[in-house]
Amino acid sequence: MNFTQASTLIVNEINKLNWNIEPTGMYSPIQHILSNGGKRLRPAVLLMSASIFSDDYSKAIAPAIGVELFHNSTLLHDDLMDDASLRRNQPTVHVKWDANTAILSGDAMILLAARYVSQSPEKSLKDVLEVYNKITLEVCDGQQYDMDFELRKDVKIAEYLKMIELKTAVLLAGSIKMGAIIGGASKTDQDKLYNFGLHLGLAFQMIDDLLDVYGDEATFGKEIGGDISSNKKTFMLISAMEKAEGEVKERLTQWILAKEFKKVDKVKEVTSIYNELGIREMAEEKAEEYFKKSLASLDQLSVKNQTVTDLADLAVKMLKRNN
Amino acid sequence: MNFTQASTLIVNEINKLNWNIEPTGMYSPIQHILSNGGKRLRPAVLLMSASIFSDDYSKAIAPAIGVELFHNSTLLHDDLMDDASLRRNQPTVHVKWDANTAILSGDAMILLAARYVSQSPEKSLKDVLEVYNKITLEVCDGQQYDMDFELRKDVKIAEYLKMIELKTAVLLAGSIKMGAIIGGASKTDQDKLYNFGLHLGLAFQMIDDLLDVYGDEATFGKEIGGDISSNKKTFMLISAMEKAEGEVKERLTQWILAKEFKKVDKVKEVTSIYNELGIREMAEEKAEEYFKKSLASLDQLSVKNQTVTDLADLAVKMLKRNN
Repeated sequence: MNFTQASTLIVNEINKLNWNIEPTGMYSPIQHILSNGGKRLRPAVLLMSASIFSDDYSKAIAPAIGVELFHNSTLLHDDLMDDASLRRNQPTVHVKWDANTAILSGDAMILLAARYVSQSPEKSLKDVLEVYNKITLEVCDGQQYDMDFELRKDVKIAEYLKMIELKTAVLLAGSIKMGAIIGGASKTDQDKLYNFGLHLGLAFQMIDDLLDVYGDEATFGKEIGGDISSNKKTFMLISAMEKAEGEVKERLTQWILAKEFKKVDKVKEVTSIYNELGIREMAEEKAEEYFKKSLASLDQLSVKNQTVTDLADLAVKMLKRNN
Repeated sequence: MNFTQASTLIVNEINKLNWNIEPTGMYSPIQHILSNGGKRLRPAVLLMSASIFSDDYSKAIAPAIGVELFHNSTLLHDDLMDDASLRRNQPTVHVKWDANTAILSGDAMILLAARYVSQSPEKSLKDVLEVYNKITLEVCDGQQYDMDFELRKDVKIAEYLKMIELKTAVLLAGSIKMGAIIGGASKTDQDKLYNFGLHLGLAFQMIDDLLDVYGDEATFGKEIGGDISSNKKTFMLISAMEKAEGEVKERLTQWILAKEFKKVDKVKEVTSIYNELGIREMAEEKAEEYFKKSLASLDQLSVKNQTVTDLADLAVKMLKRNN
């Protein structure tokens, strides 16, 4: 099962869900955020992972929908916490409705997600839930660290990497592991697939940070330079602060402390500092390192079949993406 | 096992939980809201219910902690949505910290709750989760209806009763049913206990509404008349609006529409309208009706033992409470 097949299947299943139920004030916002599209990456890899070990991947559909619901609940609440007004060019829930609606609809999505995940086959239920309950709490941990880091000036690279691991990578890794459990994989294969997903998620986030600086606005789909302009403590900014010396460090610090500036100037100047310091190459190397670890874990699986190849192809596509 | 024993046991277990973990920005607020005390009603009845059918109630402790965590997550998010500044004389989480902390800590509590509930014995896990996943979503449905009703003028008594059933009673009922499942009760006994809890929860809420009007401020622990002053569409206000005619209806309507008033005047006048219309007696009868249904369900259990008697005693105490 390749990614397009898995993704199409999940999109169809999600489109079948009926949100036209009472109380509509709580369910309409759920329909709204789910209809914004998205590649359905996490549920699709969950299905692929199950289908490595079993032809009957249909039993993985409900938990796959569960992880997508959970992922969207975090987007809904994160948008509220960040006061973001748009997501995929649609108004966010707290803007289209209000903050209380966003809080309650998000809560309902977390609970609905658990309901779908609980429909996993009974024999794998306990193991699936152990993974799911762990990774979903870790996503919250990651979000809290991300918020903490905004107020701190001394964030270290290792802390940043741990934060993106929790906030982004474990949900991808855990989704893949859940699929493996449902498919009937051995513990060893479950862990290999978890590591595949974890490092793929980390590589993905590094690329995301790179595209925010070096991407093409038209294909990236959002404004370039947002991270630089807001002093977001990414791998790149932290590395630059650690590596810069003398006059370069002074220029970088001035831009970070600047209260009034034209965004275009700050983005241009900080980018040129990154270029002087070779930060782009450092980030690309880090992404490549994670990517290799990811594929190495996949290579160590006890099973080789078309879906394993399809997962490797997906990883390559994710790393080579420009949006 | 009587209520005091069950409650003490749960209080001790909750006090043992360690919240001094990273990221502290997310876990400290959880410790804060849990340390506010409370009778731990839901987890205590879950334990009692399990102990009707099994001496080994220890296996019900984790899910009992789970329902208490979920209950507190709803308090945390409800306080934020209502912008309440105090709970049990302590500052609420969004006041002591901020709104984003309240959102994320509440989310984490929902997820932690599921983690504890998932520690139910494996043979009852699927059934326990089915109940838990249903009632927790129903609590959200109830909260949405409650919010919807604030903006509506035509709320019917049946709608109000359905709302309090969802928002308040199902969590109590479901907690008792979860205990019964874990204890090994038959499906029939599970349902009888659910109905016991459901009607007890409804009676409890009716009493709560009554105390808000007719309670003694010192023993009730909060200001009397809050519901009247804010036009909360309780059973009493809806009944009064339905029953009032002519000049009485006019006076009641004027108080409801009044923009500027002394709270003490409005509370006094609306209370005297309730007295004229016999609303107190109507509400007391309704509470009594639920109470009788509740005890009738308990009577129909296939088992009679000390804990069943203890549950009946608890119900009597809850109905006769003055706080």
